[in-house]
Amino acid sequence: MPAAVIDGKAISHNPGSRSLRDQLKADIAKLKEAQPAVHPKLALIQVGTRSDSSSYIRLKQKAAAEAGIEFALFQFPDTATLNDILSQIQILNEDNSVHGLLVQLPLPEHIDEALVIDAISPKKDVDGLHPVNVGKLVVRGSAPVIQPCTPKGIMALIRSTGITIEGKNATVVGRGDLVGAPMSLLLTAANATVTLCHTKTSDVVDHIKRADILVVAIGQANYVQDSSKKSGYRTVGDVDYAAASKVAGHITPVPGGVGPMTVAMLMDNVYLVAKGSSQ
Amino acid sequence: MPAAVIDGKAISHNPGSRSLRDQLKADIAKLKEAQPAVHPKLALIQVGTRSDSSSYIRLKQKAAAEAGIEFALFQFPDTATLNDILSQIQILNEDNSVHGLLVQLPLPEHIDEALVIDAISPKKDVDGLHPVNVGKLVVRGSAPVIQPCTPKGIMALIRSTGITIEGKNATVVGRGDLVGAPMSLLLTAANATVTLCHTKTSDVVDHIKRADILVVAIGQANYVQDSSKKSGYRTVGDVDYAAASKVAGHITPVPGGVGPMTVAMLMDNVYLVAKGSSQ
Ligand SMILES: NC(=O)c1ccc[n+]([C@@H]2O[C@H](COP(=O)([O-])OP(=O)(O)OC[C@H]3O[C@@H](n4cnc5c(N)ncnc54)[C@H](O)[C@@H]3O)[C@@H](O)[C@H]2O)c1
Ligand SMILES: NC(=O)c1ccc[n+]([C@@H]2O[C@H](COP(=O)([O-])OP(=O)(O)OC[C@H]3O[C@@H](n4cnc5c(N)ncnc54)[C@H](O)[C@@H]3O)[C@@H](O)[C@H]2O)c1
Repeated sequence: MPAAVIDGKAISHNPGSRSLRDQLKADIAKLKEAQPAVHPKLALIQVGTRSDSSSYIRLKQKAAAEAGIEFALFQFPDTATLNDILSQIQILNEDNSVHGLLVQLPLPEHIDEALVIDAISPKKDVDGLHPVNVGKLVVRGSAPVIQPCTPKGIMALIRSTGITIEGKNATVVGRGDLVGAPMSLLLTAANATVTLCHTKTSDVVDHIKRADILVVAIGQANYVQDSSKKSGYRTVGDVDYAAASKVAGHITPVPGGVGPMTVAMLMDNVYLVAKGSSQ
Repeated sequence: MPAAVIDGKAISHNPGSRSLRDQLKADIAKLKEAQPAVHPKLALIQVGTRSDSSSYIRLKQKAAAEAGIEFALFQFPDTATLNDILSQIQILNEDNSVHGLLVQLPLPEHIDEALVIDAISPKKDVDGLHPVNVGKLVVRGSAPVIQPCTPKGIMALIRSTGITIEGKNATVVGRGDLVGAPMSLLLTAANATVTLCHTKTSDVVDHIKRADILVVAIGQANYVQDSSKKSGYRTVGDVDYAAASKVAGHITPVPGGVGPMTVAMLMDNVYLVAKGSSQ
């Protein structure tokens, strides 16, 4: 039986259904009605003119408009200095009209990304990449926290299948800051037993075969081919779709899988900050 | 062949050998000589009179004295309020003569531990429990960081065996904030492939059998009995020592395994902060 497709596009913004975006739009309208002084606002800093970054930014701008979130873009040339960026961050950290603040990654090589992310107020860090927010994903019983958008979106996709996560074996391949590493933390928090694989893993195929839930975030097309024989439910990316869909119970397509969810979760994070700041 | 014993007591403070404590004492003497204004100092807040806490504190006080670290103890009755503790933390955060600051855990039930830990300046958080320091264990390429003492000590014990960690399968049982969760992060950072097990894990014995390196931190005596058949090298605690030492390549005893390392690593963290602040 071929895998059931997890349709991230439909879940995130199918017009007419009770999609995440429709839900968010309604929630934001309700918030504005209850608290007329609050206008959820996202500020985004772009450094340079990478065309992939520009098109991600357009997607975010469009999603913000649809949700009823104000959007302000601050553009710097790729010759900007670290101090230029830090000064702008400081201004936006202190601006009470701004609820969410993010710097589009990657940055030009001469700018230290860690220093930039550290400078963003953790309360406005809607990408969920500030170390204090990442740390709160690990520390049990700490305050509710902004979760990083892509892993938060993948969790929503896994949950959309109706499968119980608790007690399942999950394998995450890739330990990048944006996807793999925080993904392993969210799956652990949801009571999966997580194995985190990376370039130094000696037997990644074994770990993939054992997985009930598989998340691949390594940035290599068709990395997982026909090595995963055990049937079950798997949420995959960077995977040979045709081969994997024969053995997986569920699968996310590319495009239309995780991508649209990431943007939806970013908007959700802006809403959560705005709502918190209005209480 | 029975397991080689990893002697944490000897590694941490055997008098006369080049133990960690001897090394630290020498390093601190050198630091004081080079920077006569710097006197490494650890401040510790105790709330209540639990006798286990009091004896851990005495061990820390003794180790500080041996290493040449000043030690200041601030004691509160167990009726102290959260605000009492936070005010004391604020004073010590701002006191430039204090390099390391920790609050002895556990706290009385009416005090929210997360709020207390959040209030400690991450720069003085020598227990390595502040979310920003935990987050930096996850985020790749972020600044060097204070590592939590017990996992840092366990890493030193594993390294003392001479075994290569990179590429090994490591199973960590327990995902507590003090040991299990940060342990999994340090092992991943050292390029092991880590599986993190907990109370909701359905097949913990399988994960233990697969492990080249095993760390058990669940707070249940003799939890791991004769279930680990594969021979190899394992670093264990909360384990049936007699049974496990027949199958493991290396094993830590209790007492004299991890305990003495924790205190040594705490002192090392105070030294690292003092050294950083003198640059
Ligand atoms: N919304 C989205 O859909 C979205 C968002 C962000 C990233 N991504 C995608 O996720 C993937 C990962 O992105 P990232 O930013 O985390 O990348 P990254 O480069 O930060 O991390 C990649 C990780 O994969 C590991 N890796 C690489 N090759 C491997 C191999 N052969 N075996 C095992 N591990 C290997 C590396 O060790 C590293 O930890 C990319 O494909 C990226 O395009 C998608
Ligand atoms: N220096 C030292 O030697 C030192 C320092 C700190 C803690 N410890 C010891 O480490 C252990 C853990 O301490 P902690 O503070 O992390 O405890 P904790 O209570 O915070 O965490 C215990 C973890 O173990 C898990 N667990 C409990 N029973 C389990 C089971 N049967 N199967 C799988 N998982 C199970 C729980 O889910 C939890 O995640 C204790 O034995 C403690 O005494 C030693």
